[in-house]
Amino acid sequence: MPSLKQLSINLATLREQWDLRQAVEGCARHGIRAVAPWRDQIAKVGLTESACVLRDNGMRVTGLCRGGMFPAPTEAGRQAALDDNRRALEEAVALGAECLVLVVGGLPGDSRDIAGARRMVEDGIGKLLEAARPAGMPLAIEPLHPMYAADRACVNTLRQALDLCDRLGEGAGVAVDVYHLWWDPELEAQIARAGEGGRLLAYHICDWLVPTRDLLLDRGMMGDGVIELPRIRGWMERAGYGGLHEVEIFSAEDWWMRDPEEVLQTCIARHGSAT
Amino acid sequence: MPSLKQLSINLATLREQWDLRQAVEGCARHGIRAVAPWRDQIAKVGLTESACVLRDNGMRVTGLCRGGMFPAPTEAGRQAALDDNRRALEEAVALGAECLVLVVGGLPGDSRDIAGARRMVEDGIGKLLEAARPAGMPLAIEPLHPMYAADRACVNTLRQALDLCDRLGEGAGVAVDVYHLWWDPELEAQIARAGEGGRLLAYHICDWLVPTRDLLLDRGMMGDGVIELPRIRGWMERAGYGGLHEVEIFSAEDWWMRDPEEVLQTCIARHGSAT
Repeated sequence: MPSLKQLSINLATLREQWDLRQAVEGCARHGIRAVAPWRDQIAKVGLTESACVLRDNGMRVTGLCRGGMFPAPTEAGRQAALDDNRRALEEAVALGAECLVLVVGGLPGDSRDIAGARRMVEDGIGKLLEAARPAGMPLAIEPLHPMYAADRACVNTLRQALDLCDRLGEGAGVAVDVYHLWWDPELEAQIARAGEGGRLLAYHICDWLVPTRDLLLDRGMMGDGVIELPRIRGWMERAGYGGLHEVEIFSAEDWWMRDPEEVLQTCIARHGSAT
Repeated sequence: MPSLKQLSINLATLREQWDLRQAVEGCARHGIRAVAPWRDQIAKVGLTESACVLRDNGMRVTGLCRGGMFPAPTEAGRQAALDDNRRALEEAVALGAECLVLVVGGLPGDSRDIAGARRMVEDGIGKLLEAARPAGMPLAIEPLHPMYAADRACVNTLRQALDLCDRLGEGAGVAVDVYHLWWDPELEAQIARAGEGGRLLAYHICDWLVPTRDLLLDRGMMGDGVIELPRIRGWMERAGYGGLHEVEIFSAEDWWMRDPEEVLQTCIARHGSAT
């Protein structure tokens, strides 16, 4: 059974209730030793202040969310995206994050050319790696569910992300998020492949609700949906993953409306019983 | 450019406005020579009457929607599903359909075992093939978008469907629906594979809207979304597909609310200009 030491809270899970300081202190009160903040949460409190809050509370940072969004209709737009990613990288370093999570972006402008968008993603990550490698900051490509292919991320399966890693070389890996990948008949095999290549950088958990009422903001608490969380964790462990289990729940109508203390208590309980 | 002769209308596209007879006669008035009805539409008018209406209007039937839904928590439930599929098969034969489309079903009952559901699907199709082969009725496995993996179909990529076909042997093929498959980085390669194996039984078109407001009932008219329809048609043609292009649009808030004459005019115009 997973222990509290293996739990990390992605702070998107508490974004409507708490700012970064409140969330970090709240997690610490509940005995949680790791979080993953978002850049807008960092920006509100300030980078230096955020780093202090995290350090003072002894928090591991399992990832910074997020870089990415590489495709743009113009060269200037792609350069601006790359510049922003370099800033994200510096923030990840400043926070001592274990990786920078990349949500790679979808179709640029009014384009329908998804193959072209995928080339822009590869080009962008390749350039970002030139700064990430010397900084020692791993880039975690997060394949997103195919329902986000147009507007959020055109990397949509673990196989595709790993093919990309193979071409990009050292410094690139993957974030395995069960919400995006649970349905994939190749998931077990591709997790094993990622492990062999040393590419498993992060493991994100939540649950897939039936019915799902919103494409973006209706993720479930572990145990409330249909994902075989213990089975997937077993595949991760057999592939050699020794990192934490990061709970990331976007839930506009449910968990974001609840008392954050209840949310954390439930995360801890379900992490122990349902993952 | 596609011609009107290549157009088929899946009658789900008009389900809120017209019954089967009205829809078939409406299509005929617009010079459309092929349709794909749903079983509930057939049931309302009656099988014999439906067959007459289709024949009298000179309609090809590009597929009967739908068989499938094989998984069930109990042996009796799976047997009932198989019995219902055998009736669907008889209806497809009676209507002279070119294939029986299979939406295979998702997780049975409160199960989370998607691998188990997939085994039930394979077992069910295998048994249905014993009746389908002597009847000369091809079974078109339709991989559905991964967002339907839990509740509608646990076959979610063309690769997975073709692996299934390889194991099932003669009589099984695939329905390629752009809505479900457009995002797949392997789509071109898997369409080519399907063509080599003689497995391309149907081609369904519509469009993916950005944003998509509902997981089930917010499909777009061709040209209104982000799918590269001409490119995918090119892949189908290069793979040897010589069948029709079947328009299937579930659209509770838009196309189902419109005058059906306008819907058909738009289908014809967009089929010519945007696919």
